[in-house]
Amino acid sequence: MKLTILIHCPDQSGIIRSVTTFVHQQEGNVVYLDQHVDKQVGVFFMRLESEFEKKVSLEAFKKGFEQELAQQFQMEWDIYLGAYRPKMAIFVSKYNHCLYDLLSRYNSEELSVDIPFILSNHRDLEYVAEQFQIPFYHVPVTKDTREEAEEKQLELLKKHEVDFIVLARYMQIVSPKLIDVYPQKIINIHHSFLPAFVGAKPYHAAFERGVKIIGATSHYVTSELDAGPIIEQDVTAVSHSHSIKDFIAKGRDLERIVLSRAVQLHVARKTMVYNNKTVIFS
Amino acid sequence: MKLTILIHCPDQSGIIRSVTTFVHQQEGNVVYLDQHVDKQVGVFFMRLESEFEKKVSLEAFKKGFEQELAQQFQMEWDIYLGAYRPKMAIFVSKYNHCLYDLLSRYNSEELSVDIPFILSNHRDLEYVAEQFQIPFYHVPVTKDTREEAEEKQLELLKKHEVDFIVLARYMQIVSPKLIDVYPQKIINIHHSFLPAFVGAKPYHAAFERGVKIIGATSHYVTSELDAGPIIEQDVTAVSHSHSIKDFIAKGRDLERIVLSRAVQLHVARKTMVYNNKTVIFS
Amino acid sequence: MKLTILIHCPDQSGIIRSVTTFVHQQEGNVVYLDQHVDKQVGVFFMRLESEFEKKVSLEAFKKGFEQELAQQFQMEWDIYLGAYRPKMAIFVSKYNHCLYDLLSRYNSEELSVDIPFILSNHRDLEYVAEQFQIPFYHVPVTKDTREEAEEKQLELLKKHEVDFIVLARYMQIVSPKLIDVYPQKIINIHHSFLPAFVGAKPYHAAFERGVKIIGATSHYVTSELDAGPIIEQDVTAVSHSHSIKDFIAKGRDLERIVLSRAVQLHVARKTMVYNNKTVIFS
Amino acid sequence: MKLTILIHCPDQSGIIRSVTTFVHQQEGNVVYLDQHVDKQVGVFFMRLESEFEKKVSLEAFKKGFEQELAQQFQMEWDIYLGAYRPKMAIFVSKYNHCLYDLLSRYNSEELSVDIPFILSNHRDLEYVAEQFQIPFYHVPVTKDTREEAEEKQLELLKKHEVDFIVLARYMQIVSPKLIDVYPQKIINIHHSFLPAFVGAKPYHAAFERGVKIIGATSHYVTSELDAGPIIEQDVTAVSHSHSIKDFIAKGRDLERIVLSRAVQLHVARKTMVYNNKTVIFS
Repeated sequence: MKLTILIHCPDQSGIIRSVTTFVHQQEGNVVYLDQHVDKQVGVFFMRLESEFEKKVSLEAFKKGFEQELAQQFQMEWDIYLGAYRPKMAIFVSKYNHCLYDLLSRYNSEELSVDIPFILSNHRDLEYVAEQFQIPFYHVPVTKDTREEAEEKQLELLKKHEVDFIVLARYMQIVSPKLIDVYPQKIINIHHSFLPAFVGAKPYHAAFERGVKIIGATSHYVTSELDAGPIIEQDVTAVSHSHSIKDFIAKGRDLERIVLSRAVQLHVARKTMVYNNKTVIFS
Repeated sequence: MKLTILIHCPDQSGIIRSVTTFVHQQEGNVVYLDQHVDKQVGVFFMRLESEFEKKVSLEAFKKGFEQELAQQFQMEWDIYLGAYRPKMAIFVSKYNHCLYDLLSRYNSEELSVDIPFILSNHRDLEYVAEQFQIPFYHVPVTKDTREEAEEKQLELLKKHEVDFIVLARYMQIVSPKLIDVYPQKIINIHHSFLPAFVGAKPYHAAFERGVKIIGATSHYVTSELDAGPIIEQDVTAVSHSHSIKDFIAKGRDLERIVLSRAVQLHVARKTMVYNNKTVIFS
Repeated sequence: MKLTILIHCPDQSGIIRSVTTFVHQQEGNVVYLDQHVDKQVGVFFMRLESEFEKKVSLEAFKKGFEQELAQQFQMEWDIYLGAYRPKMAIFVSKYNHCLYDLLSRYNSEELSVDIPFILSNHRDLEYVAEQFQIPFYHVPVTKDTREEAEEKQLELLKKHEVDFIVLARYMQIVSPKLIDVYPQKIINIHHSFLPAFVGAKPYHAAFERGVKIIGATSHYVTSELDAGPIIEQDVTAVSHSHSIKDFIAKGRDLERIVLSRAVQLHVARKTMVYNNKTVIFS
Repeated sequence: MKLTILIHCPDQSGIIRSVTTFVHQQEGNVVYLDQHVDKQVGVFFMRLESEFEKKVSLEAFKKGFEQELAQQFQMEWDIYLGAYRPKMAIFVSKYNHCLYDLLSRYNSEELSVDIPFILSNHRDLEYVAEQFQIPFYHVPVTKDTREEAEEKQLELLKKHEVDFIVLARYMQIVSPKLIDVYPQKIINIHHSFLPAFVGAKPYHAAFERGVKIIGATSHYVTSELDAGPIIEQDVTAVSHSHSIKDFIAKGRDLERIVLSRAVQLHVARKTMVYNNKTVIFS
C-alpha cells in the first residue's frame, strides 16, 4: 500500500523530523520526500510518499495525522491512496488536437485516469468520443442558456463523481459556480506564453508583435481570466518566415504537450497551490 | 571583393531575376540569396551576397543599382562592403556581465567590430574598460543634466563616427534625439520575454506571477519603451524552488547570449526592419 | 497552379538567374526561393515555388526545364505539383503513440496525405486502424518468412501506389530490397539522439551512461542501421531522478513530435539528400 | 552558521528521520532537504542544509555524525561549512572563451571561489591572467617532458592547496596521477553531446554526420577519455546552412554555459557521484 502526503504550513523547525517519525510509527517507509520553503511568505511545503507492507486504514491514518501533527504545525494537508484513479472530465469545443492527445495517452495507459465523459458546446467532436467509446454530452452555451448549461454541467459532474476537469481548448469562460465546486481542479491550456497575450487570439497578437518565440501555458482556472496558478509552460522558436497559420500549427504541438504534462502532474499529485502560484514537485 | 545587398520593396514579379541579372552584368557571382515575402503587407525582402573577382567601384555599383533596379521596383536598399568593420559604442551602467561578454568576444575576434568607446553614467565599470584598453567616458545623468548628457553623448558618437550603439544593461531611457540619429541602430537587451513584463524589475514581476520560464529579449530601440522590433529572444526554465536572486542569476546568462546574438546578426547585416518587426536572414 | 522545383548541381555562376528567367518565360511568378551551397563538396541546392495564373502543362514544363536548364548545369531535379497529396503507408509494431499522433494529424487535416494502409507484423494495433477506418494488413515476420513478408510488403506498396513509407516504431529491420524501391522515401524514428546509442534499447543505454539529455532522431532509412540522413532531431532534459521508465515516457513525446515534423517536411518537399546528409529548406 | 551534509548509503528505512533528528539534537534547523533513491542499485542519496543559531564545532559535529549515524547506516558522507570558498585552479590551452567566462563570473562574485592560479601549456592566454591579476604558470607539455610537467602541476596544486581543477578547454589528457589526487574534483568541458563524438574534433564529426543539434558536456575526469560522470549538458540547433566554423562558433557559447553551470553546481556542493553517474541536487 502506498500513500502520498501533501502538506503546507507555516515554516518552523522540526516538521520533517515529526512527519517522518509519524510515518515510521505507522510502520511506513518513506520512499520519496521533497520539500520547499517559500521564504517570502514563510510557508513550508512537503510531498512525501510512503509504502506500507501491512494494510493500513486510511481513515485511521488521516485521523492520527490530523491529531498528532496537523494541529501542532497548523498544516493544510491531503493524503492520497496511490492506487486511486481519478475521474477526469474533458470539456472541448471544436479543436480536436488536445482531445486526441489526451485520449491516445489514456488509451495506452500513459494517463492513469478514468474518463466518465467528454462535454462540448458543439457536436463537432462527438465522433472522436465515439472512436474511443467515451460518453459524449452536448451542452450548447448561448447568452440565454448559460445558466441552464451550467446547471447541466454541474449535474453531470456530480452524477459521475468527477474529480477534476480538463479544458482541452474549450473556448468558453467557465462560470464561477463551477470554479467554486472545483477549486484548483480545473486545468486550462492557454495558447500563449502567459502573462503575454492574455485573452482571445494570442497567436495573432504574437504575430503582430513580431516575437521570435511562442508558447503555451497550462494553469488552474480561477475567476480572473488566464491569471490562475501556472502549472506548466513551454515555448518554440518562430521567425519572420512563419505566417499566423504556421504559428497556430506550431502552437498545436505546444498545446498538446503542455496540457498533457500538466494533467500528468495533477494526476500524480505533484502540484500544490499557494498565493496563486504552484509548487511542482519532481 | 564581397558585397551584401539588402532590399525591401512592394512584392511584384521579376525582382529576383532582375537583381541576379544585374549582379551578373557587373561580373559578380551570387553566393547567397535569401528572400521573404510578408503576405500581409505585400512586401518583398531580400538579402544577397555576391563575390567579384575584379575590383568594383562601390559608388558606381550603387549608382547603377539605383538607376537600373531600385527606381523600377521602388526599392529601399543598402549595399555593404564585406570587409568593413562597423564601429560599435557600448553604453553600460553598473552590471558587468553583458559588457564582459561583448569584450571577450571582441578580444577573441568572435565579434568583427571596432569599439571606439564605452560610455556609462557611473564609474563602476571603468576598470573593465581599462582591462581591455578601451576608452571610457563617464557621462552622469541626473534629472537636471539629462539634456547636457545627451549633447555629450551625441558629440562623442559623432566624433568617433559610431555606426551603432549597444545598450549592455544601460538602465537609462535613451532620448528620442539619439534614436532619431541612430534609427534601428541602437540595440537593447531587456531582461524579460517581451511583451511580458515591460519596464522595470521584470524578474520580480515574473517571480510574482509564478511563471515556469523566464526570458530575455534584444530589440532595436524605438521611442516606445521596450516595444521596438525584436531581434532575438531566448528563455530558460525556472521553478518554484528558484528565488528572485536565482531568476536574476539565470537571467544574466540569457541576457549575455541574447544580446551577443543580436549584435552578431546586426554586424553581419542579417537584420531588416519593417512595420516594427524584423526579418532575420539565416 | 503551383509548382515546387528542387535542384542540386555543381556550384557555378548564373544558376539562380537562369532558373528564375526560365520560370518567368513560362509566365510563372517566383513566390519562394531558398538556396544553399555546400562549399565542402561544391554543390548547389535550390528550392523554388512558383505560381502560374494560367494552366501549364507539367509535362511540357518538365521537358523544357530538362532541355534548357538541367543539361547545361548538370542538374538533378524534381518538380512537384502543389496540389498533389502523396500516398503514405505506415508500418508499426506494438507501440501506438506515434501511430495515434500521425492519424490524429491526418484526421484534422494537419497532414496533407492519403493513407492507403497501415501494416504491422503484429495484430496489436489493428484496433487503431479500425478507429480511423484505415485498411490494416497483418504481415508477420519471422526468420523463416522474412522473404515472403518482403514480397507481400512490396506487392501492397505497389498495388496502392505508395509514395513514401513511415516507420512509426516498426521495430523491424527493413530489407535492402524495399530501400532500393523507396530510396530516401522511408522515414524512420529512432529513439535516441543519433549518433549516440545506435541500435536496440537506446533509453537503457542512455540511462546507463547517466546523460542529462535524451533525444529522438528521424532519418531516411539506408542499408546501414540508424545511419541514414538525419531529417530532424529534438531533445529533452532528464535527471538522476528519472528511471528508465521515465526516460521511455519522456521519449514517447519526443518520438511523436520528431517523427511528425520529419513527415511534414517530407510532404512539403522541403528535404533534399546529398552525401548522406539532408538539406532542409525553411 | 550553515552546514551542508551530503550522504549516500544502502537504501533502508529510517534514514531521513534519523538524520533530521540528529540535526535537531544539535540545535540545527533543516532549511533544505533533497533525497534520491537509485532503485537499480539500492542506494540512498541525500543533501541537507541546516542552520545553527549558536556556533557549533564542525569537528564535534562530524565526530558525532560519524558515531551516531554513519556507522549504523554505512554512510559515505561529507559535511561542508557554508561560508568556505573553495580554491579552484584553471587549466587552459589556447582558447580563451571559457576562461573569460569563468573569470568574469569570478570578478562579479557570481562564482564564489578563490583562484590561486591559471596554468597552461602555452603562453597565449597569459595576457588574460594579467588582465584579471591572477598568477599564471606556463608548464609546457611535450612527449619528453610529460612526467616532469605532471610533477610541476602536482607541486603547484599542493602548494596552493587547490580544492578542485577546471579544465577550460585544456586540450591535454590529464595524467592518472593527477586524477588519483583529485578524484571527482577535475571538471572538464567536452565540445560534444556525449557519448556522441568522443575524442578529438567533435564538431568536425558532427558536421560530417549531418546532425541537426550539437551539444557540449561537462563531466568529472576519470581515467577513461570523455567517459566520466556527466554533470551538465546542453544543446543548440544547427542546420545544413552552418559550416564547421559556424558549429565551432555556436559551440563556444554552449561550452561557456555548460562549463560554468557545472562549476557552480560543484561549488554549491550539489553534485554526488556514484557508479560513474552524478546525482545533481536542485
